[in-house]
Amino acid sequence: MTISVAVSGASGYAGGELLRLLVSHPAVTIGAITAHSSAGSRLGELQPHLHSLSDRLIEETTVENLAGHDVVFLALPHGASADIAAQLPDTTLVIDAGADHRLSDPAAWEKFYGSAHAGTWPYGLPELPDHRELLRSARRVAVPGCYPTSSLLALTPGFTAGLLQPEDVVIVAASGTSGAGKAVKAHLLGSEVMGGMSPYGVGGAHRHTPEIEQGLSLAAGQQVQVSFTPTLAPMARGILTTATAKVMPGTTAEQLRDAWTAAYDDEPFVTVLPEGQWPATKAVLGSNYANLQLAFDEHAGRVIVTCVIDNLTKGTAGGAIQSMNIALGLPETAGLTLQGVAP
Amino acid sequence: MTISVAVSGASGYAGGELLRLLVSHPAVTIGAITAHSSAGSRLGELQPHLHSLSDRLIEETTVENLAGHDVVFLALPHGASADIAAQLPDTTLVIDAGADHRLSDPAAWEKFYGSAHAGTWPYGLPELPDHRELLRSARRVAVPGCYPTSSLLALTPGFTAGLLQPEDVVIVAASGTSGAGKAVKAHLLGSEVMGGMSPYGVGGAHRHTPEIEQGLSLAAGQQVQVSFTPTLAPMARGILTTATAKVMPGTTAEQLRDAWTAAYDDEPFVTVLPEGQWPATKAVLGSNYANLQLAFDEHAGRVIVTCVIDNLTKGTAGGAIQSMNIALGLPETAGLTLQGVAP
Amino acid sequence: MTISVAVSGASGYAGGELLRLLVSHPAVTIGAITAHSSAGSRLGELQPHLHSLSDRLIEETTVENLAGHDVVFLALPHGASADIAAQLPDTTLVIDAGADHRLSDPAAWEKFYGSAHAGTWPYGLPELPDHRELLRSARRVAVPGCYPTSSLLALTPGFTAGLLQPEDVVIVAASGTSGAGKAVKAHLLGSEVMGGMSPYGVGGAHRHTPEIEQGLSLAAGQQVQVSFTPTLAPMARGILTTATAKVMPGTTAEQLRDAWTAAYDDEPFVTVLPEGQWPATKAVLGSNYANLQLAFDEHAGRVIVTCVIDNLTKGTAGGAIQSMNIALGLPETAGLTLQGVAP
Amino acid sequence: MTISVAVSGASGYAGGELLRLLVSHPAVTIGAITAHSSAGSRLGELQPHLHSLSDRLIEETTVENLAGHDVVFLALPHGASADIAAQLPDTTLVIDAGADHRLSDPAAWEKFYGSAHAGTWPYGLPELPDHRELLRSARRVAVPGCYPTSSLLALTPGFTAGLLQPEDVVIVAASGTSGAGKAVKAHLLGSEVMGGMSPYGVGGAHRHTPEIEQGLSLAAGQQVQVSFTPTLAPMARGILTTATAKVMPGTTAEQLRDAWTAAYDDEPFVTVLPEGQWPATKAVLGSNYANLQLAFDEHAGRVIVTCVIDNLTKGTAGGAIQSMNIALGLPETAGLTLQGVAP
Repeated sequence: MTISVAVSGASGYAGGELLRLLVSHPAVTIGAITAHSSAGSRLGELQPHLHSLSDRLIEETTVENLAGHDVVFLALPHGASADIAAQLPDTTLVIDAGADHRLSDPAAWEKFYGSAHAGTWPYGLPELPDHRELLRSARRVAVPGCYPTSSLLALTPGFTAGLLQPEDVVIVAASGTSGAGKAVKAHLLGSEVMGGMSPYGVGGAHRHTPEIEQGLSLAAGQQVQVSFTPTLAPMARGILTTATAKVMPGTTAEQLRDAWTAAYDDEPFVTVLPEGQWPATKAVLGSNYANLQLAFDEHAGRVIVTCVIDNLTKGTAGGAIQSMNIALGLPETAGLTLQGVAP
Repeated sequence: MTISVAVSGASGYAGGELLRLLVSHPAVTIGAITAHSSAGSRLGELQPHLHSLSDRLIEETTVENLAGHDVVFLALPHGASADIAAQLPDTTLVIDAGADHRLSDPAAWEKFYGSAHAGTWPYGLPELPDHRELLRSARRVAVPGCYPTSSLLALTPGFTAGLLQPEDVVIVAASGTSGAGKAVKAHLLGSEVMGGMSPYGVGGAHRHTPEIEQGLSLAAGQQVQVSFTPTLAPMARGILTTATAKVMPGTTAEQLRDAWTAAYDDEPFVTVLPEGQWPATKAVLGSNYANLQLAFDEHAGRVIVTCVIDNLTKGTAGGAIQSMNIALGLPETAGLTLQGVAP
Repeated sequence: MTISVAVSGASGYAGGELLRLLVSHPAVTIGAITAHSSAGSRLGELQPHLHSLSDRLIEETTVENLAGHDVVFLALPHGASADIAAQLPDTTLVIDAGADHRLSDPAAWEKFYGSAHAGTWPYGLPELPDHRELLRSARRVAVPGCYPTSSLLALTPGFTAGLLQPEDVVIVAASGTSGAGKAVKAHLLGSEVMGGMSPYGVGGAHRHTPEIEQGLSLAAGQQVQVSFTPTLAPMARGILTTATAKVMPGTTAEQLRDAWTAAYDDEPFVTVLPEGQWPATKAVLGSNYANLQLAFDEHAGRVIVTCVIDNLTKGTAGGAIQSMNIALGLPETAGLTLQGVAP
Repeated sequence: MTISVAVSGASGYAGGELLRLLVSHPAVTIGAITAHSSAGSRLGELQPHLHSLSDRLIEETTVENLAGHDVVFLALPHGASADIAAQLPDTTLVIDAGADHRLSDPAAWEKFYGSAHAGTWPYGLPELPDHRELLRSARRVAVPGCYPTSSLLALTPGFTAGLLQPEDVVIVAASGTSGAGKAVKAHLLGSEVMGGMSPYGVGGAHRHTPEIEQGLSLAAGQQVQVSFTPTLAPMARGILTTATAKVMPGTTAEQLRDAWTAAYDDEPFVTVLPEGQWPATKAVLGSNYANLQLAFDEHAGRVIVTCVIDNLTKGTAGGAIQSMNIALGLPETAGLTLQGVAP
């Protein structure tokens, strides 16, 4: 079986990562490669790392160019995907790497994005309870945000197992600069970011908070409240998420470790590291893997879970392809067995 | 007045930073420069950035070599300073950049360092309530750790003002690699750290937790409980601390901002940034300044304070010299007005 | 066909990269994974990025453990491979990633390495004239050094075409720190290398000079003389080589471009970029590709060629596997079509 | 004596560095701080590292605002300074950090910058033969480019001593990204530059080539021909220049070393490092120092000189202030004794 795929937003980081992975996918043929302002350029000009595709021309992102493929990946600015998706056949698998279809609560969408809610699609994080089943045969998939991916992988097992208190989750995450996209902004210049760290969008107002709360609340069976602070780290890729929650009275370290290892034992891409080994973003760079470690801080009554992913791979393009594989009935790991690139 | 100073541990990062700053201090003459395994070498071989001192010879760290100076800075491995300090005259100002004399609770020391407690010296963070007064005329000063410096600067105003709940403080900090010292360890190799982040020493066991709790408890007038997670960032210098605490019921954003600005209005080295401007470690690199910003996350009922310092300057050597200035009755900012080095 | 391979030196950077690539090789089964001081450890402890192999145990590097495989990769310290290779059957394909068998001149070896010359093996850079043919059916292959790989790719076409003068080649290369290996040395600490550059081993004495001269002389049909200066850049991977040579009188820019494009038109891994596009190491990171650009500096009468490779991939492990493919009659690109990882 | 200075271009990297250094200058009062598009902003918004000046307002860059100071520093885009300078009194010391007044050959200016030549001012590199004398009492000074500063410091002693051949100088330099300024361009994004190197502007066309040739030719007493290749390194600051030239027949290593040490023995900011110690850009970061090392590659008949400077300090703002000190009869090192910031 050969599946034809189209990738929009091909000049950006998410689009580039989709193409990088799809080149190695055994069941895929890459069809249309589209973008907006760079339409007409050779791909090699904008994404010189995609050697196999360097002579491909970038087409304009239009419904006409995207139609006629088995799968269409949308890596577009927020708010742009609903309209295009509506014009693609229901039988086409449309995978939206943007935020438009992640939230189930229209009010939360409108508060944080200021536009009308485009509707909710199956959420492409198969490691969450029941999510893999929802993705089978889906023809519309919302790819989770990169911060929510790592945050939900970090804490879901504890909520599912009933070991965590819902009211006081604190998450601090450090992301590489590619998470901020390829838009040319002064504070993202190399001279500004190399050698330093800074927070951004702090104070409850971060767009990813409702998405994290939505996932954790689903696992907990009740509303979970999260304080989330993202920071910008001097690296191009990677997220290190430090997530902490208060444990239920009487919880033991062993119960905690058992809950996490049980949750991920059969997962092909998520590993709870052996005790004593701490995760490093470089161990997952360029790969679809997530590594976790947890510690029980008895003193503070909190579990501290650190989770690393590559924001562009498991956090965006890899997660998107994993969902594609499930939706199409392919082996879930097809095209995703690239190891991390280290050192 | 010219003050003679000796610096031990001169081949390490803390010793090098002390010398870098002391070269620009208007009231100081640099006397003995001592170290252990590198005794006999030219300083320029080990610290090639100290151009003015490159031809000075490193002497052996002995009481004989350190004695006879007005001020002795100790930048030695943990556990090594008490013995030397005991042999220096009471009239010599001894400033210990190590951990030995920071904790007032011998049990906490013994738990985390595994050796006998060396006693408690005045704590060299003059921005804490009443601490400046304690440092005047002191002849023994314990320099705070770099993580505690940024953590205490971040949260003390809220506890002093009675606006924060003591039982559930969560701090996550990212430090540059110089915080781990110059010891040659595989995980600190450039190939390993560049381009990635990782946590370390997570789980309540971090040595700096009791020091942070000690300072916050003093400000709160009751025991404060802290969950502290340090992470390693791909930069040589700088700490970004994200500190959060639950606010007392009814607390407003205005009260919070007022408490922090009031606490630091007259401080020469600590700035609460204007609203909307977030701190960046690069803005304080190489300087004794600390920048803070705070946000009230009403949703989570938490204040989130981010604080940046240079771990080697305000976090170690600059803080040490600031305490020296106070103890000797010099202008507190003498030798410490170097601006940040950016970009 | 399934080929069994053994990898020695598996705890180092070259060994890790071999394993990373071999995991994705369609015709290969990974057999023994060996090292010296880390024998007995889980691979996941030392190479946490190799998720698929994390539970494999590292065996001791002995002839017994390496024997019985179709292919044995040696990634050992200089001087260690000859002895092991001699004890492996002639029918085993032995690929030495070390320097021992690269030089054809025993005197050059002895001068730069200070030990007896171990003999010369077919040189694994198939892009050089006639080299691909020499590698077919070879059972011993010497993998080129990373600096020579980029230097030879940069200048060989000009010498083969007779357009360059042999007496005054100047090469300056910048390498990521992984080129210096995983040995724990103070000047390779992250704190020391991040944010700065430095030269090393300058002055004609660099070990790679004879290897570069050997290859260029072969292409030129006469002795070529090279001044080579390596520098250390603040990045984990990648080499940017700037190679310049004087052109023969009357040479035109068009002749130069024609020579290079003709040389590499059919090469699967080497690209002369379109005019106006300059190579970047990040475009080849983690891949077996080499990108080149050339300019004719008429003013100075020199061609300036810049070439980028990943020192660990095309410069070591990828090049080794490319030679393996050729020697075994596999498609030359098998297992090597991973794209660059950018940004 | 207190000297009043105005700094234009204060929102850029050169302007910021001038202010950083001037804050520590013992004889200076900082007057007008001007810029163009950011006029009206607090300086702390744009240059948050300049703590002492954070509340100063940025004024519009006009002759009116700059007039009335003893010294005016121009850090403006190419082509903008001549007009302003012409309207400032002859008695005002005008120091141009831009390129406009560096070249003595109008044709070279017009070829590389495409506009009318603005005239030639005394060249602010006092370490060149006779230049210090020219700067005394000058009221117009052209600050050298950062690449020419390091290139000229590297090779001038050899040409002055008649030990080098003029016809085949090859220089390859690696610069931090601040050398490209604060203009927001896609290839300067952190995601693009971190972890990689690339050349730029290669092929004889670089604007700095005529400036380097001008200086070396003056020292040699004949036309010197240079091939110059700049590369971009993943660091914010610093230049590592590798400069090589063929030596005259019969030249010895001792003669070479003697020429360089003699040239710089009395220079306060330039050091020829002891043999065996190689320069590192981090040793001069944030300082006005330049470190050099040289090696005689007898094999290639070339001297290889590596020189490190901070492009913003000795390469721009520090060099400008050094010239100011000389022109005003102040101690040459006033305000410039800041040590390097390492690690």
